[in-house]
Amino acid sequence: MKRIIPYAHELLQEVVQDGDVAIDATCGNGHDTLLLSRLVGINGEVHSFDIQEQAITNTSQLLKENHVTNVQLHLDGHENVDKYLHDKAVRAAIFNLGYLPGEDHSIITKPETTIEAIQKIQDRLVTGGRIVLVIYHGHEGGREEKESVVSYCEALDQKHFEVTRYEFINQINRPPFVVAIEKRK
Amino acid sequence: MKRIIPYAHELLQEVVQDGDVAIDATCGNGHDTLLLSRLVGINGEVHSFDIQEQAITNTSQLLKENHVTNVQLHLDGHENVDKYLHDKAVRAAIFNLGYLPGEDHSIITKPETTIEAIQKIQDRLVTGGRIVLVIYHGHEGGREEKESVVSYCEALDQKHFEVTRYEFINQINRPPFVVAIEKRK
Repeated sequence: MKRIIPYAHELLQEVVQDGDVAIDATCGNGHDTLLLSRLVGINGEVHSFDIQEQAITNTSQLLKENHVTNVQLHLDGHENVDKYLHDKAVRAAIFNLGYLPGEDHSIITKPETTIEAIQKIQDRLVTGGRIVLVIYHGHEGGREEKESVVSYCEALDQKHFEVTRYEFINQINRPPFVVAIEKRK
Repeated sequence: MKRIIPYAHELLQEVVQDGDVAIDATCGNGHDTLLLSRLVGINGEVHSFDIQEQAITNTSQLLKENHVTNVQLHLDGHENVDKYLHDKAVRAAIFNLGYLPGEDHSIITKPETTIEAIQKIQDRLVTGGRIVLVIYHGHEGGREEKESVVSYCEALDQKHFEVTRYEFINQINRPPFVVAIEKRK
Protein backbone atom coordinates (compact mmCIF):
# COMPACT_ATOMS: atom_id res chain seq x y z
CA MET A 1 0.00 0.00 0.00
CA LYS A 2 1.28 3.45 -0.81
CA ARG A 3 3.62 4.77 1.93
CA ILE A 4 3.10 8.18 3.52
CA ILE A 5 6.14 10.08 2.16
CA PRO A 6 5.80 8.87 -1.46
CA TYR A 7 2.09 9.68 -1.27
CA ALA A 8 2.83 13.24 -0.06
CA HIS A 9 5.40 13.71 -2.82
CA GLU A 10 2.97 12.42 -5.44
CA LEU A 11 0.42 15.05 -4.37
CA LEU A 12 3.07 17.69 -5.13
CA GLN A 13 4.26 16.09 -8.38
CA GLU A 14 0.70 15.97 -9.71
CA VAL A 15 0.30 19.75 -9.60
CA VAL A 16 3.65 21.56 -9.57
CA GLN A 17 4.82 22.73 -12.98
CA ASP A 18 7.77 24.51 -14.51
CA GLY A 19 7.91 28.16 -13.46
CA ASP A 20 5.76 27.77 -10.34
CA VAL A 21 6.24 29.24 -6.88
CA ALA A 22 6.36 26.58 -4.15
CA ILE A 23 7.00 26.54 -0.42
CA ASP A 24 8.73 24.12 1.90
CA ALA A 25 7.33 25.35 5.20
CA THR A 26 9.60 23.14 7.33
CA CYS A 27 12.78 22.46 5.42
CA GLY A 28 14.33 20.04 7.94
CA ASN A 29 17.03 18.11 6.11
CA GLY A 30 16.07 19.64 2.77
CA HIS A 31 14.68 16.65 0.90
CA ASP A 32 11.29 18.25 0.18
CA THR A 33 13.00 21.50 -0.84
CA LEU A 34 15.14 19.60 -3.32
CA LEU A 35 12.08 17.86 -4.76
CA LEU A 36 10.22 21.17 -5.13
CA SER A 37 13.23 22.87 -6.71
CA ARG A 38 13.30 20.15 -9.38
CA LEU A 39 9.55 20.42 -9.99
CA VAL A 40 9.48 24.22 -10.43
CA GLY A 41 12.60 24.18 -12.65
CA ILE A 42 14.94 27.06 -13.40
CA ASN A 43 12.04 29.40 -14.13
CA GLY A 44 10.38 28.73 -10.80
CA GLU A 45 11.18 29.58 -7.21
CA VAL A 46 11.06 27.77 -3.91
CA HIS A 47 10.88 29.44 -0.52
CA SER A 48 12.02 27.23 2.34
CA PHE A 49 11.52 28.01 6.01
CA ASP A 50 12.89 26.69 9.26
CA ILE A 51 13.44 28.15 12.71
CA GLN A 52 16.48 25.94 13.35
CA GLU A 53 19.88 26.97 12.05
CA GLN A 54 20.86 23.32 11.76
CA ALA A 55 17.99 22.73 9.33
CA ILE A 56 18.99 25.69 7.17
CA THR A 57 22.64 24.53 7.23
CA ASN A 58 21.71 20.96 6.27
CA THR A 59 19.41 22.12 3.48
CA SER A 60 21.94 24.63 2.18
CA GLN A 61 24.54 21.86 1.99
CA LEU A 62 22.18 19.50 0.15
CA LEU A 63 21.25 22.24 -2.34
CA LYS A 64 24.92 23.06 -3.00
CA GLU A 65 25.70 19.39 -3.66
CA ASN A 66 22.88 19.38 -6.20
CA HIS A 67 23.81 22.73 -7.82
CA VAL A 68 20.40 24.20 -7.02
CA THR A 69 19.94 27.93 -7.65
CA ASN A 70 16.18 28.49 -7.48
CA VAL A 71 15.68 28.22 -3.71
CA GLN A 72 15.53 31.00 -1.14
CA LEU A 73 16.20 29.76 2.40
CA HIS A 74 14.63 31.70 5.28
CA LEU A 75 15.77 31.22 8.88
CA ASP A 76 12.36 32.28 10.08
CA GLY A 77 9.02 30.79 11.11
CA HIS A 78 6.65 29.81 8.30
CA GLU A 79 4.02 32.11 9.84
CA ASN A 80 6.08 34.95 8.34
CA VAL A 81 5.69 33.59 4.82
CA ASP A 82 3.94 36.82 3.72
CA LYS A 83 7.10 38.86 4.43
CA TYR A 84 8.86 36.98 1.61
CA LEU A 85 6.03 36.00 -0.72
CA HIS A 86 4.17 39.34 -0.71
CA ASP A 87 1.22 38.72 -3.06
CA LYS A 88 2.81 36.02 -5.19
CA ALA A 89 0.52 33.19 -6.32
CA VAL A 90 1.57 29.82 -4.91
CA ARG A 91 1.13 26.40 -6.55
CA ALA A 92 2.07 24.16 -3.65
CA ALA A 93 3.41 23.99 -0.12
CA ILE A 94 4.52 21.15 2.12
CA PHE A 95 4.69 21.03 5.91
CA ASN A 96 6.28 18.31 8.01
CA LEU A 97 4.65 18.87 11.37
CA GLY A 98 6.49 17.59 14.42
CA TYR A 99 10.24 17.82 14.96
CA LEU A 100 13.40 17.68 12.87
CA PRO A 101 14.46 14.01 12.71
CA GLY A 102 17.73 13.44 14.53
CA GLU A 103 17.74 16.89 16.17
CA ASP A 104 16.40 18.46 19.35
CA HIS A 105 12.95 16.94 19.91
CA SER A 106 11.92 19.79 22.21
CA ILE A 107 11.82 22.13 19.19
CA ILE A 108 8.52 21.27 17.58
CA THR A 109 6.08 23.03 15.31
CA LYS A 110 3.21 24.72 17.19
CA PRO A 111 -0.45 24.70 16.15
CA GLU A 112 -0.92 28.49 16.31
CA THR A 113 1.95 29.31 13.97
CA THR A 114 1.23 26.32 11.75
CA ILE A 115 -2.37 27.45 11.26
CA GLU A 116 -1.29 31.05 10.69
CA ALA A 117 1.06 29.86 7.95
CA ILE A 118 -1.62 27.66 6.36
CA GLN A 119 -4.03 30.61 6.32
CA LYS A 120 -1.51 32.90 4.64
CA ILE A 121 -0.60 30.27 2.03
CA GLN A 122 -4.20 29.18 1.30
CA ASP A 123 -5.02 32.80 0.40
CA ARG A 124 -2.21 32.75 -2.18
CA LEU A 125 -2.98 29.33 -3.75
CA VAL A 126 -3.87 29.20 -7.43
CA THR A 127 -6.84 27.06 -8.49
CA GLY A 128 -5.76 23.42 -8.24
CA GLY A 129 -2.89 24.39 -5.96
CA ARG A 130 -2.21 22.25 -2.88
CA ILE A 131 -0.98 22.44 0.69
CA VAL A 132 0.30 19.05 1.86
CA LEU A 133 0.65 18.41 5.60
CA VAL A 134 2.61 15.39 6.83
CA ILE A 135 1.59 15.15 10.46
CA TYR A 136 3.92 13.42 12.92
CA HIS A 137 2.14 13.18 16.26
CA GLY A 138 3.89 10.53 18.34
CA HIS A 139 5.95 13.11 20.31
CA GLU A 140 4.98 15.21 23.31
CA GLY A 141 2.61 17.96 22.16
CA GLY A 142 1.96 16.03 18.97
CA ARG A 143 -1.60 15.08 19.81
CA GLU A 144 -2.53 18.68 20.59
CA GLU A 145 -1.04 19.94 17.35
CA LYS A 146 -2.66 17.15 15.34
CA GLU A 147 -6.10 17.88 16.75
CA SER A 148 -5.87 21.66 16.26
CA VAL A 149 -4.57 21.44 12.72
CA VAL A 150 -6.99 18.69 11.66
CA SER A 151 -9.95 20.61 13.14
CA TYR A 152 -8.86 23.73 11.26
CA CYS A 153 -8.67 21.78 7.98
CA GLU A 154 -12.01 20.01 8.53
CA ALA A 155 -13.66 23.42 8.89
CA LEU A 156 -12.36 24.80 5.58
CA ASP A 157 -15.29 25.81 3.35
CA GLN A 158 -15.91 23.03 0.81
CA LYS A 159 -16.94 25.65 -1.74
CA HIS A 160 -13.37 26.86 -1.85
CA PHE A 161 -11.24 23.90 -0.76
CA GLU A 162 -11.16 20.11 -0.93
CA VAL A 163 -9.48 18.45 2.03
CA THR A 164 -8.42 14.79 2.10
CA ARG A 165 -6.79 12.60 4.74
CA TYR A 166 -4.76 9.44 4.10
CA GLU A 167 -3.44 7.24 6.88
CA PHE A 168 -2.53 3.79 8.12
CA ILE A 169 -5.08 3.00 10.82
CA ASN A 170 -3.99 -0.30 12.41
CA GLN A 171 -0.48 0.59 13.56
CA ILE A 172 0.19 0.94 17.27
CA ASN A 173 3.17 3.29 16.97
CA ARG A 174 1.14 6.33 15.81
CA PRO A 175 2.64 6.73 12.32
CA PRO A 176 2.46 10.07 10.46
CA PHE A 177 -0.51 10.73 8.20
CA VAL A 178 -1.24 13.17 5.37
CA VAL A 179 -3.85 15.93 5.18
CA ALA A 180 -4.01 17.71 1.81
CA ILE A 181 -5.82 20.93 0.95
CA GLU A 182 -6.62 21.76 -2.68
CA LYS A 183 -7.93 25.13 -3.86
CA ARG A 184 -11.08 24.90 -5.95
CA LYS A 185 -12.23 27.54 -8.42
CA MET B 1 -7.90 15.37 -5.73
CA LYS B 2 -8.52 11.70 -6.39
CA ARG B 3 -12.23 10.82 -6.07
CA ILE B 4 -13.41 7.94 -3.89
CA ILE B 5 -14.63 5.48 -6.55
CA PRO B 6 -11.61 5.84 -8.90
CA TYR B 7 -9.36 5.49 -5.85
CA ALA B 8 -11.12 2.25 -4.81
CA HIS B 9 -10.83 0.89 -8.35
CA GLU B 10 -7.15 1.79 -8.51
CA LEU B 11 -6.51 -0.23 -5.36
CA LEU B 12 -7.98 -3.25 -7.18
CA GLN B 13 -6.22 -2.57 -10.48
CA GLU B 14 -2.86 -2.39 -8.74
CA VAL B 15 -3.07 -5.98 -7.50
CA VAL B 16 -5.52 -8.08 -9.55
CA GLN B 17 -3.89 -10.13 -12.30
CA ASP B 18 -4.93 -12.51 -15.05
CA GLY B 19 -6.18 -15.81 -13.65
CA ASP B 20 -7.00 -14.49 -10.17
CA VAL B 21 -10.03 -15.16 -7.98
CA ALA B 22 -11.85 -11.98 -6.95
CA ILE B 23 -15.02 -11.14 -5.05
CA ASP B 24 -17.63 -8.43 -5.41
CA ALA B 25 -19.25 -8.73 -2.00
CA THR B 26 -22.13 -6.33 -2.83
CA CYS B 27 -22.75 -6.46 -6.53
CA GLY B 28 -25.39 -3.70 -6.65
CA ASN B 29 -25.65 -2.54 -10.25
CA GLY B 30 -22.69 -4.67 -11.31
CA HIS B 31 -20.08 -2.07 -12.15
CA ASP B 32 -17.46 -3.41 -9.76
CA THR B 33 -18.19 -6.98 -10.91
CA LEU B 34 -17.58 -5.93 -14.51
CA LEU B 35 -14.29 -4.26 -13.55
CA LEU B 36 -13.12 -7.36 -11.65
CA SER B 37 -14.15 -9.68 -14.51
CA ARG B 38 -11.93 -7.68 -16.88
CA LEU B 39 -9.01 -7.68 -14.44
CA VAL B 40 -9.04 -11.45 -13.79
CA GLY B 41 -9.50 -12.24 -17.51
CA ILE B 42 -10.80 -15.46 -19.05
CA ASN B 43 -8.57 -17.59 -16.84
CA GLY B 44 -9.84 -16.00 -13.65
CA GLU B 45 -13.11 -16.09 -11.75
CA VAL B 46 -15.27 -13.54 -9.99
CA HIS B 47 -17.83 -14.36 -7.31
CA SER B 48 -20.48 -11.69 -6.83
CA PHE B 49 -22.92 -11.56 -3.97
CA ASP B 50 -26.11 -9.67 -3.22
CA ILE B 51 -29.16 -10.37 -1.09
CA GLN B 52 -31.44 -8.38 -3.43
CA GLU B 53 -32.86 -10.05 -6.54
CA GLN B 54 -32.91 -6.66 -8.27
CA ALA B 55 -29.14 -6.35 -7.84
CA ILE B 56 -28.53 -9.83 -9.27
CA THR B 57 -30.88 -9.06 -12.19
CA ASN B 58 -29.19 -5.72 -12.94
CA THR B 59 -25.73 -7.26 -12.74
CA SER B 60 -26.69 -10.25 -14.86
CA GLN B 61 -28.01 -7.88 -17.54
CA LEU B 62 -24.83 -5.78 -17.50
CA LEU B 63 -22.66 -8.90 -17.78
CA LYS B 64 -24.72 -10.23 -20.71
CA GLU B 65 -24.36 -6.92 -22.55
CA ASN B 66 -20.61 -7.20 -22.09
CA HIS B 67 -20.37 -10.91 -23.03
CA VAL B 68 -18.85 -11.77 -19.68
CA THR B 69 -18.44 -15.48 -18.89
CA ASN B 70 -16.13 -15.60 -15.88
CA VAL B 71 -18.54 -14.41 -13.15
CA GLN B 72 -20.64 -16.49 -10.77
CA LEU B 73 -23.58 -14.57 -9.30
CA HIS B 74 -24.85 -15.61 -5.88
CA LEU B 75 -28.21 -14.44 -4.55
CA ASP B 76 -26.93 -14.85 -1.02
CA GLY B 77 -25.32 -12.83 1.77
CA HIS B 78 -21.56 -12.26 1.50
CA GLU B 79 -21.17 -13.86 4.94
CA ASN B 80 -21.73 -17.17 3.13
CA VAL B 81 -18.73 -16.63 0.86
CA ASP B 82 -17.10 -19.82 2.19
CA LYS B 83 -19.93 -21.97 0.77
CA TYR B 84 -18.83 -20.95 -2.74
CA LEU B 85 -15.13 -20.25 -2.36
CA HIS B 86 -14.24 -23.29 -0.22
CA ASP B 87 -10.48 -22.93 0.33
CA LYS B 88 -9.68 -20.98 -2.83
CA ALA B 89 -7.03 -18.28 -2.50
CA VAL B 90 -8.42 -14.78 -3.16
CA ARG B 91 -6.57 -11.80 -4.66
CA ALA B 92 -9.10 -9.07 -4.02
CA ALA B 93 -12.57 -8.22 -2.80
CA ILE B 94 -14.66 -5.07 -2.85
CA PHE B 95 -17.56 -4.11 -0.58
CA ASN B 96 -19.90 -1.16 -1.05
CA LEU B 97 -21.33 -0.75 2.42
CA GLY B 98 -24.68 0.99 2.70
CA TYR B 99 -27.60 0.47 0.33
CA LEU B 100 -28.14 -0.21 -3.37
CA PRO B 101 -28.37 3.20 -5.09
CA GLY B 102 -31.85 3.83 -6.49
CA GLU B 103 -33.41 0.87 -4.64
CA ASP B 104 -35.03 0.24 -1.27
CA HIS B 105 -32.97 2.20 1.27
CA SER B 106 -34.27 0.08 4.14
CA ILE B 107 -32.24 -2.88 2.84
CA ILE B 108 -28.75 -2.07 4.05
CA THR B 109 -25.62 -4.03 4.82
CA LYS B 110 -25.28 -4.95 8.51
CA PRO B 111 -22.06 -4.78 10.55
CA GLU B 112 -22.25 -8.38 11.87
CA THR B 113 -22.54 -10.00 8.46
CA THR B 114 -20.10 -7.52 6.89
CA ILE B 115 -17.46 -8.36 9.48
CA GLU B 116 -18.13 -12.10 9.16
CA ALA B 117 -17.56 -11.80 5.40
CA ILE B 118 -14.37 -9.76 5.86
CA GLN B 119 -13.04 -12.38 8.29
CA LYS B 120 -13.71 -15.24 5.89
CA ILE B 121 -12.12 -13.39 2.97
CA GLN B 122 -9.07 -12.13 4.90
CA ASP B 123 -8.24 -15.76 5.76
CA ARG B 124 -8.20 -16.60 2.04
CA LEU B 125 -6.19 -13.57 0.83
CA VAL B 126 -2.87 -14.21 -0.89
CA THR B 127 0.13 -12.08 0.13
CA GLY B 128 -0.41 -8.61 -1.34
CA GLY B 129 -4.12 -9.31 -1.79
CA ARG B 130 -6.61 -6.59 -0.80
CA ILE B 131 -10.08 -6.09 0.60
CA VAL B 132 -11.45 -2.66 -0.38
CA LEU B 133 -14.37 -1.22 1.59
CA VAL B 134 -16.27 1.78 0.22
CA ILE B 135 -18.24 2.94 3.24
CA TYR B 136 -21.44 4.94 2.68
CA HIS B 137 -22.69 6.11 6.06
CA GLY B 138 -25.14 8.97 5.50
CA HIS B 139 -28.21 6.71 5.82
CA GLU B 140 -29.99 5.46 8.96
CA GLY B 141 -27.85 2.77 10.58
CA GLY B 142 -24.87 3.97 8.57
CA ARG B 143 -23.03 5.45 11.51
CA GLU B 144 -23.33 2.25 13.53
CA GLU B 145 -22.07 0.14 10.64
CA LYS B 146 -19.22 2.56 9.93
CA GLU B 147 -18.03 2.53 13.54
CA SER B 148 -18.20 -1.26 13.92
CA VAL B 149 -16.45 -1.98 10.66
CA VAL B 150 -13.77 0.68 11.14
CA SER B 151 -13.07 -0.54 14.70
CA TYR B 152 -12.74 -4.07 13.41
CA CYS B 153 -10.25 -2.97 10.74
CA GLU B 154 -8.24 -0.79 13.17
CA ALA B 155 -7.76 -3.85 15.38
CA LEU B 156 -6.35 -6.08 12.63
CA ASP B 157 -2.84 -7.26 13.59
CA GLN B 158 -0.25 -5.09 11.81
CA LYS B 159 2.04 -8.12 11.56
CA HIS B 160 -0.39 -9.69 9.11
CA PHE B 161 -2.30 -6.78 7.56
CA GLU B 162 -1.84 -3.15 6.54
CA VAL B 163 -4.98 -1.04 6.79
CA THR B 164 -5.36 2.41 5.23
CA ARG B 165 -8.18 4.97 5.20
CA TYR B 166 -8.72 7.67 2.56
CA GLU B 167 -11.43 10.30 2.85
CA PHE B 168 -12.57 13.83 2.16
CA ILE B 169 -12.78 15.47 5.58
CA ASN B 170 -14.35 18.92 5.04
CA GLN B 171 -17.65 17.96 3.39
CA ILE B 172 -20.86 18.40 5.35
CA ASN B 173 -22.86 15.72 3.49
CA ARG B 174 -20.97 12.75 4.95
CA PRO B 175 -19.45 11.40 1.72
CA PRO B 176 -18.30 7.76 1.43
CA PHE B 177 -14.71 6.91 2.32
CA VAL B 178 -12.38 3.99 1.64
CA VAL B 179 -10.80 1.54 4.06
CA ALA B 180 -8.40 -0.93 2.45
CA ILE B 181 -6.88 -4.06 3.98
CA GLU B 182 -3.75 -5.62 2.45
CA LYS B 183 -2.38 -9.02 3.42
CA ARG B 184 1.30 -8.96 4.37
CA LYS B 185 3.64 -11.96 4.19
